[in-house]
Amino acid sequence: MNDRLSIPTELVDWRTKGLWWPGDPVTLDEFAARGDHLFTGPFTWPLMVLHASALDRNLAALADFTERHRLLFAPHGKTAMSPVLTQRQLDAGAWGITAATANQVLDFRRFGVNRILLANELLDPKVLRWVAAEIDADPGFDFLFYVDSPEGVAVASQAVERDGGRPLRVVVERGVPGGRTGCRTREALLDVAREVVRAPGLELAGVAGYEGPLRDAEGVRGFLGDLLGDAAALTAEHELERPVLSVGGSAWFDVVAEVIGGRSDVLPVLRSGAYVAHDDGLYRRTTPYNRMPEGGDALAGALELWAQVTSTPEEGLAIAGMGRREANHDQGFPVPRALRRSDGTSVPADGVEVTNLNDHHAYLNIPEGLHVRPGDLLSFGISHPCTAFDRWQVIPVVDDGYRVVEAIATYF
Amino acid sequence: MNDRLSIPTELVDWRTKGLWWPGDPVTLDEFAARGDHLFTGPFTWPLMVLHASALDRNLAALADFTERHRLLFAPHGKTAMSPVLTQRQLDAGAWGITAATANQVLDFRRFGVNRILLANELLDPKVLRWVAAEIDADPGFDFLFYVDSPEGVAVASQAVERDGGRPLRVVVERGVPGGRTGCRTREALLDVAREVVRAPGLELAGVAGYEGPLRDAEGVRGFLGDLLGDAAALTAEHELERPVLSVGGSAWFDVVAEVIGGRSDVLPVLRSGAYVAHDDGLYRRTTPYNRMPEGGDALAGALELWAQVTSTPEEGLAIAGMGRREANHDQGFPVPRALRRSDGTSVPADGVEVTNLNDHHAYLNIPEGLHVRPGDLLSFGISHPCTAFDRWQVIPVVDDGYRVVEAIATYF
Repeated sequence: MNDRLSIPTELVDWRTKGLWWPGDPVTLDEFAARGDHLFTGPFTWPLMVLHASALDRNLAALADFTERHRLLFAPHGKTAMSPVLTQRQLDAGAWGITAATANQVLDFRRFGVNRILLANELLDPKVLRWVAAEIDADPGFDFLFYVDSPEGVAVASQAVERDGGRPLRVVVERGVPGGRTGCRTREALLDVAREVVRAPGLELAGVAGYEGPLRDAEGVRGFLGDLLGDAAALTAEHELERPVLSVGGSAWFDVVAEVIGGRSDVLPVLRSGAYVAHDDGLYRRTTPYNRMPEGGDALAGALELWAQVTSTPEEGLAIAGMGRREANHDQGFPVPRALRRSDGTSVPADGVEVTNLNDHHAYLNIPEGLHVRPGDLLSFGISHPCTAFDRWQVIPVVDDGYRVVEAIATYF
Repeated sequence: MNDRLSIPTELVDWRTKGLWWPGDPVTLDEFAARGDHLFTGPFTWPLMVLHASALDRNLAALADFTERHRLLFAPHGKTAMSPVLTQRQLDAGAWGITAATANQVLDFRRFGVNRILLANELLDPKVLRWVAAEIDADPGFDFLFYVDSPEGVAVASQAVERDGGRPLRVVVERGVPGGRTGCRTREALLDVAREVVRAPGLELAGVAGYEGPLRDAEGVRGFLGDLLGDAAALTAEHELERPVLSVGGSAWFDVVAEVIGGRSDVLPVLRSGAYVAHDDGLYRRTTPYNRMPEGGDALAGALELWAQVTSTPEEGLAIAGMGRREANHDQGFPVPRALRRSDGTSVPADGVEVTNLNDHHAYLNIPEGLHVRPGDLLSFGISHPCTAFDRWQVIPVVDDGYRVVEAIATYF
């Protein structure tokens, strides 16, 4: 399956953060076609950009990885919420797209995605009714969502009131004790599965879990073993033919491939999403590629934030014009990359450190000997792409020479 | 001055987070005119709303406060970035509107605000040139921005290359040692002021600072005393007539009023912005009203986030479908307000506590004896409005019975 998505025509105008565009609106494509340069074009600071080469590398890496290890890939679309990137993931062979919320499901459906895995419980009757209508209207639309409680089963079954339409496909979620959502024991999971099988309008499709919070490979192997046992029990009790078994953050896909890659008793679905932009912090430290022959450089941090130094009020302290509104900090502060002086020369920002963020200010420790002045620009990698994309509604994509080659809209 | 703002016509459609609107787009005003009810209307979860009564109370409180204490009020527009709320602030007597970034200045100008104080250094030549053109084109437009360095003065002066147009009005920023931006000593401040006076195209308008990070009232009084001394020195040296003296977070406006309210030697400008929505956390604890006869209830937390319980996987643990994408956590997690069960009954969420947020999940401690089930709804107040508004592009405004009376768009 290689869906041709419908990418909305969005406008660039004075509302567009990071662009300095007081004039008449143009479409995003018209804007990108100008081929502006980051340092001479109609931009202002702060500005988030994506590196085209890093995106290409990341998309190719996981496409190759999932193909080699015979994993179906439903990358988590919540990371970027960008139909342009979704299209590339599908072009690279993705089996489907994962979503986290009802609004995201609607977005991906409007983009034209034909297989959506909602990796979350869904208890809103109006959304469930809409899903039922969508799958009835389009035999090519495959939708899966989670249940982990009898209440979840009852709400879904009552909402759809099926009388002949296709049933809604649900996967039962397994969770980790002390963790997030999901049944904590096989007994609880099998009970919920029985409710699903009994409930009018629902179809049992498999099991799912999230191994992200587990501390080590042994813990992940144990959790995957539980899920395989769950799937086997469901297969035996309900005569399922190859149930879905879905897992996937961006920190353990090597272990996932080792345990479930290529299995024929389940449909092994990986949901990793952060890889598409990777980062300079959390995932740089935790990517499975650090444990693989390819090495950590198999992925590259694609997101880069540019901000201007607005003040150097004390020795060793600089303030840059970006803050929590433009950069996330839930998994660490932005990571300085380069210092570009007003004269156009550039040096690595070695030793520069972000020590705090206000809403629109970053506090920077400047190492002795590095001359930083108001008006200079600094670039930053980020830590945790999922909470960085959502601060930007339009993100220019640049080539390695910082010329704009594309511009994407996000839908948060 | 009571600017009539131009409020853009925005659309509600499938992109609109928190609304379940798969059908044809309507304008925000058309949507609001439906008068939908939160629990029966076209909404999905999570959803952020504003309480009309709390907004009214907050707007009235600071209008009254600044009028009584003879402070000019330029509320910080960065908090909500909403022209509808900006209009109400101007209608309530605001002298101008404060902005934090170049993009925000452009937004407020497009809305039609005639006096904008950029409470930040501005070193982007293309923005400075645009400002120069705007003030030349409109004699009624008053724009002020900060400088705290000779570089800032030079960039501004070189960019505007004035030859007969109105000069750009700058205020010199004073900062706190160990703090953020701003000159650290009077000597440094007077040096920068001299550069301003010498620089073609610039006009010295006064001084400004930010007392927010100071620990106690004595520290704030000391800082305000420094600013008054700065203003007096500028007045003497440059024969200024009543320089601007601007300060203002939302934690010390009582002390600000005490020290600079009603003074005739300066134009005392307060910039507090968070008050418009107030909160249930940071500002509930730190509002100056806690020290005033009116009491802390003079302001009310206007923002309220609604989320659905999706899972109750362990005793004492519930997971709600909202996370960092929908709620901020930089000044504390969202504060549970009420539990609304599937049968429509409601109880206070006493003892419920948010212990962690993922991107789209909240972890909740549930006290013994409180029965919480999947499908129930929870409402939350937030802590720090400035980082809560920016997660929502459309926010319905509801009356005390949760009927929609208005809907605002934000411009982040």
